[in-house]
Amino acid sequence: METLSGVIKKETKEISELVKPELVGQTVKVNGAVHVIRDMGEIAFVILRKREGLLQCVYEDGKVNVPLSEIREGTTMEVTGMVKEEAKAPHGIEIRMTEVTILSQPTEAMPLAISKWKMNASLDAKLNMRAISLRNIRERTKFKIQEGIERGFREFLYEQGFTEIRTAKLGARGAEGGANLFRLDYFHKPAVLAQSPQFYKQMMVGVYDRVFETGPVFRAEKHNTKRHLNEYTSLDFEMGYIDSFLDICGMETGFLQYTMKFLQEHYSEELRILNVTLPKTDDIPMVRFDEAKRMVSEKYNRRIKNPYDLEPEEEALIGQLFKEDYDADFVFVTHYPSKKRPFYAMDDPADPKFTLSFDLLFHGMEITTGGQRIHDYQMLLDKIAARGMTTEGMDSYLEAFKHGMPPHGGLGIGLERLTMKLVGEDNVRETTLFPRDLSRLEP
Amino acid sequence: METLSGVIKKETKEISELVKPELVGQTVKVNGAVHVIRDMGEIAFVILRKREGLLQCVYEDGKVNVPLSEIREGTTMEVTGMVKEEAKAPHGIEIRMTEVTILSQPTEAMPLAISKWKMNASLDAKLNMRAISLRNIRERTKFKIQEGIERGFREFLYEQGFTEIRTAKLGARGAEGGANLFRLDYFHKPAVLAQSPQFYKQMMVGVYDRVFETGPVFRAEKHNTKRHLNEYTSLDFEMGYIDSFLDICGMETGFLQYTMKFLQEHYSEELRILNVTLPKTDDIPMVRFDEAKRMVSEKYNRRIKNPYDLEPEEEALIGQLFKEDYDADFVFVTHYPSKKRPFYAMDDPADPKFTLSFDLLFHGMEITTGGQRIHDYQMLLDKIAARGMTTEGMDSYLEAFKHGMPPHGGLGIGLERLTMKLVGEDNVRETTLFPRDLSRLEP
Repeated sequence: METLSGVIKKETKEISELVKPELVGQTVKVNGAVHVIRDMGEIAFVILRKREGLLQCVYEDGKVNVPLSEIREGTTMEVTGMVKEEAKAPHGIEIRMTEVTILSQPTEAMPLAISKWKMNASLDAKLNMRAISLRNIRERTKFKIQEGIERGFREFLYEQGFTEIRTAKLGARGAEGGANLFRLDYFHKPAVLAQSPQFYKQMMVGVYDRVFETGPVFRAEKHNTKRHLNEYTSLDFEMGYIDSFLDICGMETGFLQYTMKFLQEHYSEELRILNVTLPKTDDIPMVRFDEAKRMVSEKYNRRIKNPYDLEPEEEALIGQLFKEDYDADFVFVTHYPSKKRPFYAMDDPADPKFTLSFDLLFHGMEITTGGQRIHDYQMLLDKIAARGMTTEGMDSYLEAFKHGMPPHGGLGIGLERLTMKLVGEDNVRETTLFPRDLSRLEP
Repeated sequence: METLSGVIKKETKEISELVKPELVGQTVKVNGAVHVIRDMGEIAFVILRKREGLLQCVYEDGKVNVPLSEIREGTTMEVTGMVKEEAKAPHGIEIRMTEVTILSQPTEAMPLAISKWKMNASLDAKLNMRAISLRNIRERTKFKIQEGIERGFREFLYEQGFTEIRTAKLGARGAEGGANLFRLDYFHKPAVLAQSPQFYKQMMVGVYDRVFETGPVFRAEKHNTKRHLNEYTSLDFEMGYIDSFLDICGMETGFLQYTMKFLQEHYSEELRILNVTLPKTDDIPMVRFDEAKRMVSEKYNRRIKNPYDLEPEEEALIGQLFKEDYDADFVFVTHYPSKKRPFYAMDDPADPKFTLSFDLLFHGMEITTGGQRIHDYQMLLDKIAARGMTTEGMDSYLEAFKHGMPPHGGLGIGLERLTMKLVGEDNVRETTLFPRDLSRLEP
C-alpha cells in the first residue's frame, strides 16, 4: 500500500535557503515566474519572481539548453545554475543559468508593467486586472502587511485569554437592523447577510468571557467614497468582566503595541519595501466627542454643524490637531451621542445623552468603533422599547441576558482601513484584495 | 490629556494564576458566572464558571456579606476570599468566600441543565438555546478544539511559506457554477455568495506561489443530512510549482501531523475533557478511487451501483476496511472520475476519464477535496468548451492563465466535519457554533 508520511521535500530552493555563503560556487535548482528580462546582448538578466522576493538569473549565450527567445515575461520555469555573489543583485546573489525547464508559457504580452517599482496604472486598471497587478512587488507586499496585522491581532488575543469563534454570516436578521442589509432568499425564507458578528460575540461572552472573530461583514451602504466598502474584513472582539469601557480601549492599545512589534520582527522586509514608518502606540490620547469637536472648531476656526456626529473632515482635523499638538498618530474619541449609537450601547449614567463608547482615529480616520454594552436584561428591553423597536428575531440574543451576562464590551476594527493608513494609501480599495463597492462586483 | 498606555491590569485572578502554592492562605479576588450551587446546609459550594474552567468557592453561613439566596445559577459576580488547598475540588483549590459583589442577576431559571457533565438535551434544544447550551463545559470545549485545528492549519502553513489571503464572498458568479448558489440583488445587479474561494486562490498562486484562506463558504444544497451544512468554514490552500498532486496530499499530511501535535501541546486539557484519542497521522495510505470501490465490493460483498461516485455508505466502508486491514484513521482516495470533478481539475494524462485529484476520508467520511488544477490556458479553454460551458464571467480568472501560471493544486477542508470526526460526534451541527441548514437560519 502506497502511503504519505508528510510534506514532500523539494530539490528547488527558496531565496532564504540560497543566501548562504557555503552555497556560493555550488549548483542549485530554483523555480519561479519570469518577472522581467534585461537583454544586454551577450548576456541577459532574467529576474525570477519568487514568494520571498526577486532572484537574478544570468543567461549567457550558448551556455543554456534553451534559446533566450523561449523565455518571456510570465514564463514559469525551473532553473539549474551556479550561485555567485553579486553585490548589485537582490539579496547579493545571482544564478548563472545552465539548464532551464519551461513549466508554462504565457500566451499574451503582459498588459501592465508589473516589473516597475511603482506601476503606472490607474486604480481601476489595477483592480480590473487584479491577478496581474498584484504580481507587482509593491502591490503584493501591501497584503503581506495586512496578513501581519491579522496575525498580530490573533496572537495578541490568544495571549490575553480570548477564544476564537466562527459565527454565521447568513441569518434571519441583522444586529443593527436598518436599510444597509443585503437581503436574499434562503430556501423560501427571507435572510440577510451579517453586518457584524455583534449579537453572536455578545452571546459568546456568556460562554468564554473573552472572544474574537476575524471575518467578512457585509454593508449594503450606498456610499461611494475612498473609505467605504460593501464587504470588508472586521477584526472583532468582545470581553466580559470589564470595569469600564476603558478596558476595551486598553486592550486595543495593547493590540496595536503588540502588532507594531510583531510587524517589526516578522515583516521588516515588507515594511522596508513599502517604506512604512510605524506609528506611535506607546501612549494613545483620549478625548471626549464633544470636547474634540470644540477643540477643532476653536483651533481651525470652524463652525460646528452637526453636534451629534463627526463629519469625515472633522475626523481629519482631530487627527491633524492631535498630531500637531501631541505628536499622536492615534486618538480615542469617547462618549459618542446615544442617538448615533446602536440600542445595545451602554448610556453614560452621568449623562444618558452620551454613551460609554468610542471610536479610534488613525491619522484622522475612524478605524474602530467600540464601547461598553448593556448587560442587564431589563435595561436592554427598556432601551429597545424607548427606541420604538421590537424584540422580534432577537429571542436568542435576549436569552443570553435573561440567564445572566457579565458587564462587557468590545469593538470592531476595519482591517483594510487599518492597512491603508499604515502603508500610507488614501483609498481603501488599494488595500483590499478584491474590493466590493457600488460599481464593482468583479473580479 | 488622558492617555492609554496598554492593557489595563486587573486585580482579579484567572485559574492558572490561582494554582500556585504561594497563594494558599492568601486572600484573592476572582470573578465568574455561577455555574451551579450545592447547598449542604451550613455551607454551600458555589461553582464559578471561568474561561479556564470551573472554580469551587465555599459559602459559609454568616461569613459572607450577602445572603446565599442572592446567589443563583447565572449570577455573575466578583468574589473575595482565601485560597485553600482542596484535593477534591477542580484544580485542587477552593476559595473561602468572604465578600461578594453581584455584577448581574439572571431573571429566570436556567432552561437547560448546563452544569451536568453530559447535558440531557436534544440537538434541537441545544441549537435553539445556543447561548445557554454552550455554557456547558463539554459543549464549549468542542469549539476550543476547533480553534486549535484552525490555529494549527495557519501556523503550519505560515511555516511552509504560504501567504494568508482574504477573498470576496460576494461575486458575480460562482467558481463551480450550478444550482447550489445563493443568489441576491447587489445594487440592482445579480450576485451570488461564494461556494469556495477556488478562482481567487488560483489567481493568487500567480502572485504568492502558496496561499491559504480560512473563511465561510455558502452552498444552497437541499441536502438535509448529518454531514451537510449550507454555510461552513473552509480551510483552503493552493500551492504552485508542484510536481504532482502528491505534493498536495503530502502538505495535508504535514498539516495533520503538525496539528495533532499542536493540540497535544496547547489543548491537552480540552482533549482530556472530551476524552479524545488523537488519530494516527504518521503514515496515511492512498488508494485509487476504482481500486477502493473494488476492495469494498469484494470484502463486504457489495455490488457496485455507481462507478462514478462514492456513496456515503461506500466511504464509510472504505474507512472501515482501512481501519481493519491497515489500522489507518485517514485514507487518501485518488483519481476521481473526471465527470464528477469541476472543469479546472487536471485530467490524468494516462487516462483522461480520471483526474489527478483526491478526497481525504477520516474514519470513513470525506473531510477534504483537492487535486492538481489545469495551469495551461489553452487546455483550460478546451476543457471549458468540451463541457459545453462558456467563459462568461471568467475573464479575470482566465487572465491569470493567459499571462503564465505554474503547475499548481490545492484543497479545501471542512473545519466542522474535521472537528466532528476528531471529537467523535456524529452530526456536524454538534461542532458548528451557529449551524445553517434547510430549516435553520437562527440563532
